Amino acid sequence: MALIVQKYGGTSVATPEHIGRVAEKVIATRGAGCDVVVVVSAMSGETNRLLALAHAITDRPDPRELDVILATGEQVTIALLSMALQARGCPAHSYTGAQVHILTDSMHNKARIMDIDAARIQHDLAAGRVVVVAGFQGVDEQGNITTLGRGGSDTTAVALAAALKADECQIYTDVDGVYTTDPRVVPEARRLARLTYEEMLEMASLGAKVLQIRSVEFASKYNVPLRVLSSFEEGAGTLITAEEEGMEQAQISGIAFNRDEAKLTVLGVPDQPGVASRILGPIADAGIEVDMIVQNVAEDATTDFTFTVHRRDYTQALAILQDVARELQAREVSGDDRIVKISLVGVGMRSHAGIASRMFRALAEEGINIRMISTSEIKVSVVVDEKYLELGVRALHDAFELGRSGGQPEGE
Amino acid sequence: MALIVQKYGGTSVATPEHIGRVAEKVIATRGAGCDVVVVVSAMSGETNRLLALAHAITDRPDPRELDVILATGEQVTIALLSMALQARGCPAHSYTGAQVHILTDSMHNKARIMDIDAARIQHDLAAGRVVVVAGFQGVDEQGNITTLGRGGSDTTAVALAAALKADECQIYTDVDGVYTTDPRVVPEARRLARLTYEEMLEMASLGAKVLQIRSVEFASKYNVPLRVLSSFEEGAGTLITAEEEGMEQAQISGIAFNRDEAKLTVLGVPDQPGVASRILGPIADAGIEVDMIVQNVAEDATTDFTFTVHRRDYTQALAILQDVARELQAREVSGDDRIVKISLVGVGMRSHAGIASRMFRALAEEGINIRMISTSEIKVSVVVDEKYLELGVRALHDAFELGRSGGQPEGE
Repeated sequence: MALIVQKYGGTSVATPEHIGRVAEKVIATRGAGCDVVVVVSAMSGETNRLLALAHAITDRPDPRELDVILATGEQVTIALLSMALQARGCPAHSYTGAQVHILTDSMHNKARIMDIDAARIQHDLAAGRVVVVAGFQGVDEQGNITTLGRGGSDTTAVALAAALKADECQIYTDVDGVYTTDPRVVPEARRLARLTYEEMLEMASLGAKVLQIRSVEFASKYNVPLRVLSSFEEGAGTLITAEEEGMEQAQISGIAFNRDEAKLTVLGVPDQPGVASRILGPIADAGIEVDMIVQNVAEDATTDFTFTVHRRDYTQALAILQDVARELQAREVSGDDRIVKISLVGVGMRSHAGIASRMFRALAEEGINIRMISTSEIKVSVVVDEKYLELGVRALHDAFELGRSGGQPEGE
Repeated sequence: MALIVQKYGGTSVATPEHIGRVAEKVIATRGAGCDVVVVVSAMSGETNRLLALAHAITDRPDPRELDVILATGEQVTIALLSMALQARGCPAHSYTGAQVHILTDSMHNKARIMDIDAARIQHDLAAGRVVVVAGFQGVDEQGNITTLGRGGSDTTAVALAAALKADECQIYTDVDGVYTTDPRVVPEARRLARLTYEEMLEMASLGAKVLQIRSVEFASKYNVPLRVLSSFEEGAGTLITAEEEGMEQAQISGIAFNRDEAKLTVLGVPDQPGVASRILGPIADAGIEVDMIVQNVAEDATTDFTFTVHRRDYTQALAILQDVARELQAREVSGDDRIVKISLVGVGMRSHAGIASRMFRALAEEGINIRMISTSEIKVSVVVDEKYLELGVRALHDAFELGRSGGQPEGE
């Protein structure tokens, strides 16, 4: 009998009525002959309510105690969903993270799963029950309650699917799958039937916030087939798996973008070993995460060093760079917080030449100036002025014919 | 170093501000040189909110799952109180019932505590921490979450005090102690400095709803000194202990009363063995609890059999009795749901004659007709018409001089 792990997020369990509908979906899956383990998040709004209570007590709540209060959110949902299943004649048992020994490290508020004891769940499945597990939470070796950080319920679901050797891990969200790009920007955007873990990771980290990155890494590591689908609509969603040999790959699966970028450049830096770390060291020390990094050699034996950060860190990063530039005797520091990043993602890119040039040509035809370029094995990212975001994404979506059924562009 | 277990109920932790004040009380106790273990209830209103959620899912929530959702109420409070203590520089750790192994039987919604593992708490106390434990909840041998039923937090506190061999278990409520009677009825009612477990049990079961009966039984069994005091006012409260040899006992400690009674009589029952059980059997089978039972032998070899039930069960009990009376060939069934019970309680009663007659005289002087009488070792209860409740309680409070400092009546 197939074993399916299903995960329902906060908007899918927002009210008792929503929970009733989730119960019906679970029962339908059982009706199709599958064993089901369900992972649920807190009802939407609940985590924020609990955080507000904690912050009414103190500005800086103790991380251990914050996990104790936050874990109640999912505990409420598991009980309600189990009741809803039972009320519909479907045997069910709920479990907190601690009860099924979702063992984590002791990093409160951002713990990582180390082990799961599958025995209790398997026993319940064998007894004909649906097992409902609280997402987002675990327990450390000392028995302290831990949480996995925002979006951690996805990780719980994937980890359970791996531990139980489930046939599929289904992530129910408020979208019906992963799209070639954001349909709000490109109305012709098309749902992707399949995607590889690597592509999903690039899509997720570049701003397509469908799945938590960590859960995709986890799925990739344990080779758990992952399916993103809608709680509110019927449909097959998007299946995310390892790349299969001989599978005909589209060159480009999708276009991701990120509006939250800012760009900083140190101009005329003496071109010496160790310069990059002298520039980025103080930035890292300030807890600022760096995204793209580009370095060009200029003509006069100096170099221009450019990187991007989250827009909220722009002002702080700029101030740090002024000091660094003085020390390095760099010519100038410049920056721009009105930029965006657009990325083409696709495993097919590996075996096809000319993707980048085709991308640049498409942008040039629209008069869009490229400010930065960065490439990896399965993506090409460009930084452009913020005002060109929609135009650029639409031009690329069109150039690579992503809106067409099948999405396979003609020739190269 | 003295060890104090303190329990704060729902109204004492109703808001983050209340919780801050509880933290300050706990810190003051530590400042006086005591180790402190704190037991808390759910914030007032929270348990009802959770119940409403469950009932929005189904009319008859599964008992196991109901415990899972209800247990979150106290879990929120322990986290908030620990945060509040830490924010004030006082080291603290919170624990759910499961985390400190408050082992119960598996009777969901009304579980009984079987064992507590004190080691983890003692370790934290030795490390200089305040330990904050969720009241009302435990865990059964299979690891399922259980709850102890309404008011169960008192029982948790007493059980912890017993397991830890605490010097005192302090129950903080919204009243400043146990009174000679309800001050709303008798403004001169006086707070009792001390009371025995037996007296408290009689007072509690007779309607003085200060402490949960089970917690008093537990305290009595393990000889845990119990103190009832106010969260909102200073004061020594009421200390409840075993009766001490040579302790000068007031004859009467207090006057309890119960407005929720109804009285039923089967008149002219043939006076044969087994009649009582033939009358009360069907009542018990219907799940109706019987309080007082009185049987008089009448002149014609028949008997009148009278008992009281909760007023809400009156109509049902009356219908049952009509059938029973027919079977027994009893003369008549009568009843009255406009009666109340007034009880004098006091361990001193055991060694003093004449309490009952003095009671009856005091009532007679006010023209109050006594409808039923029942006595036990430390109490005398009478049933009177509802309209005489306040008059009767005041007359007795006066007659036994309970309002006077010391409360010891002159001679007998």
